[in-house]
Amino acid sequence: MPKNKVYIFDTTLRDGEQVPGCKLNTKEKIEIALALEELGVDIIEAGFPISSPGDFKSVSEIGAVIKNAVICGLSRAVQKDIEVAAEALKTAKRPRIHTGIGTSDFHIKSKFNSTREEILERAKQAVKWARNYTNDVEFYAEDAGRTENEYLARVVEAVIAAGATTVNIPDTTGYCLPHQYGEKIAYLINNVPNIDKAVISCHCHNDLGLATANSIAGAMNGARQIECTINGLGERAGNTSLEEVVMVIQQHQTLGFYTDIKTQQLNPLSRLVSDTMRMPVQPNKAIVGANAFSHSSGIHQDGFLKDAQTYEIINPEQVGADGSKIVLTARSGRSALAHRFHKLGFMFNRNDIDVLYDQFLKVADRKKEVEDEDLKVLANQYQAATV
Amino acid sequence: MPKNKVYIFDTTLRDGEQVPGCKLNTKEKIEIALALEELGVDIIEAGFPISSPGDFKSVSEIGAVIKNAVICGLSRAVQKDIEVAAEALKTAKRPRIHTGIGTSDFHIKSKFNSTREEILERAKQAVKWARNYTNDVEFYAEDAGRTENEYLARVVEAVIAAGATTVNIPDTTGYCLPHQYGEKIAYLINNVPNIDKAVISCHCHNDLGLATANSIAGAMNGARQIECTINGLGERAGNTSLEEVVMVIQQHQTLGFYTDIKTQQLNPLSRLVSDTMRMPVQPNKAIVGANAFSHSSGIHQDGFLKDAQTYEIINPEQVGADGSKIVLTARSGRSALAHRFHKLGFMFNRNDIDVLYDQFLKVADRKKEVEDEDLKVLANQYQAATV
Repeated sequence: MPKNKVYIFDTTLRDGEQVPGCKLNTKEKIEIALALEELGVDIIEAGFPISSPGDFKSVSEIGAVIKNAVICGLSRAVQKDIEVAAEALKTAKRPRIHTGIGTSDFHIKSKFNSTREEILERAKQAVKWARNYTNDVEFYAEDAGRTENEYLARVVEAVIAAGATTVNIPDTTGYCLPHQYGEKIAYLINNVPNIDKAVISCHCHNDLGLATANSIAGAMNGARQIECTINGLGERAGNTSLEEVVMVIQQHQTLGFYTDIKTQQLNPLSRLVSDTMRMPVQPNKAIVGANAFSHSSGIHQDGFLKDAQTYEIINPEQVGADGSKIVLTARSGRSALAHRFHKLGFMFNRNDIDVLYDQFLKVADRKKEVEDEDLKVLANQYQAATV
Repeated sequence: MPKNKVYIFDTTLRDGEQVPGCKLNTKEKIEIALALEELGVDIIEAGFPISSPGDFKSVSEIGAVIKNAVICGLSRAVQKDIEVAAEALKTAKRPRIHTGIGTSDFHIKSKFNSTREEILERAKQAVKWARNYTNDVEFYAEDAGRTENEYLARVVEAVIAAGATTVNIPDTTGYCLPHQYGEKIAYLINNVPNIDKAVISCHCHNDLGLATANSIAGAMNGARQIECTINGLGERAGNTSLEEVVMVIQQHQTLGFYTDIKTQQLNPLSRLVSDTMRMPVQPNKAIVGANAFSHSSGIHQDGFLKDAQTYEIINPEQVGADGSKIVLTARSGRSALAHRFHKLGFMFNRNDIDVLYDQFLKVADRKKEVEDEDLKVLANQYQAATV
């Protein structure tokens, strides 16, 4: 069966960039946008043009340099927002306007002091305005994660009828469990009569650590676009990590999906974004953390040295990371120690290693990591004593 | 219906501590163990006693000071390991020996050069040895995530018959998708005749960003213990984050679970572990990241100021975090600006704010964040010009 493409919609420059401390200037944004295109993302959300003159300029200049990816600009369901987004996107070869409105009762009542019927009308109107400027219109039903499914289906049907070609179902607050988010997408696929005329998109947040699982659950139930950011940057606990969803899809071929992402560029791009935005990636971050391919326990090191697949499901080269590391600590075993001595040019037999291992552990209990220099001292002392 | 307790098994001091650069001395480990007991964890995995003299000492000293939590020591399915673990645990009021062996074909063939039948015998034997020292024995079927279910069920049945009171089903390589891990647990619940004599435990790794979702899927299918670490520390991309699974369970009451974790201590304990292990937590980490409760986009700030629930599912106080933050950037809107001016003591009307907002955006396009000092300058200039 041919695999289904899942479109990767990157919002590092919009939902990621609006994070405290992450603001970039136009030059920096262009550099990242070019790298995202090179990575193979399908859609780049470049900004929110009406929010500030700087954002308008960035969207416009990114549109001028990007050749293949769709360039998307955000707007509220407000005529002026949409006009300004369209103006900023004039430079783009393939412009998309992303417009929408909150559909959960929390949003309808607290934020808009409105009614479901009025919100439905505003949603349709926004899509029609946007369609005056481009055939590629995405509608977001903000807080869809907490929107009652029956009403959500009515909104989705109405905006598709009004001309939306992609419909985004955001779990804005990061609340859904994977099965709930999956069931929501399945409900829409099964209950919206014109659903085949649009691509359904997952936009998840990581407040409970479930954004990746929710996005995959969405795709398994019929969504074909995932909105995500490099390093999982984004409001609060962030958005879905691009690198995680892409590697889940690549590692789990039985899901029947593929993306056009060149995975070897994931680590270099993670570093570019982290450096430019000055947002550290924790060492234990999946795929792109400094320790993601480090093995330190003795049991793991022994197994890994016999066959990397014992403890590693991804080859680091596949995601552009430095090779797997064996770090020697008090938890390391004899096989890792012998392996390192061998790499350092010392030829020891099993009996030698038994003696050296005890000495190694004394050093390791004092130090966090035993360095090659420490091992050379141990080896030389041992050889001097046994000559 | 009464809720089911999910036991929280913390392995920060074992699977977390074996991470490159994370090694702690005994004094530091005791400090963290005491904080974990105060947090309300049910089981503290304190170390791997045979791995080094320092680790032995830590397990022993932690056992001597902890009053309520079960203290667990790791071992391989090797007699000497188990004897040493039992010796280290002599100080503990409630000792648990955690022993086990790899059960996937990767492990059986590459690591042990053995057969399924031989591994089954070694598993049973290990549990019997451990039962000589304590009635609380946990067995781990290493790489259970990639172990064929039928064989895994035979192993689980055999070790329960041999006396294991908890059986740990680790997804050692972080490979499983949530529905796969859930189905594995369900398979065991439905196919192991003596399964009611043991607690099934989830031990997941985060290599694909799915550890939290997998652990919850395990609990939904019958597991009643989750193994996790503070900040998700652990080998490679780390283990399941304690704070994430605990808050998923608390936020999703309909799952029918509870834990005994005092959630208000989650952020202070996260900082203690991060500081002591010198392992930074990225700002966009769920529950415990510096930005986890920050709102910066204008749309979000406006909604949040009207009703926090619009964009926040967890009250920061509930997890011991500083209050929600409104950060003023180029993406902020008029309502957040007006709110901040009001807090700073300036009383402006809507027309004032319209003028000031344009000036604010110019500052915001230049700076990452607009500070209170910048706003005071703007306000004073505005007042001087309009007097």
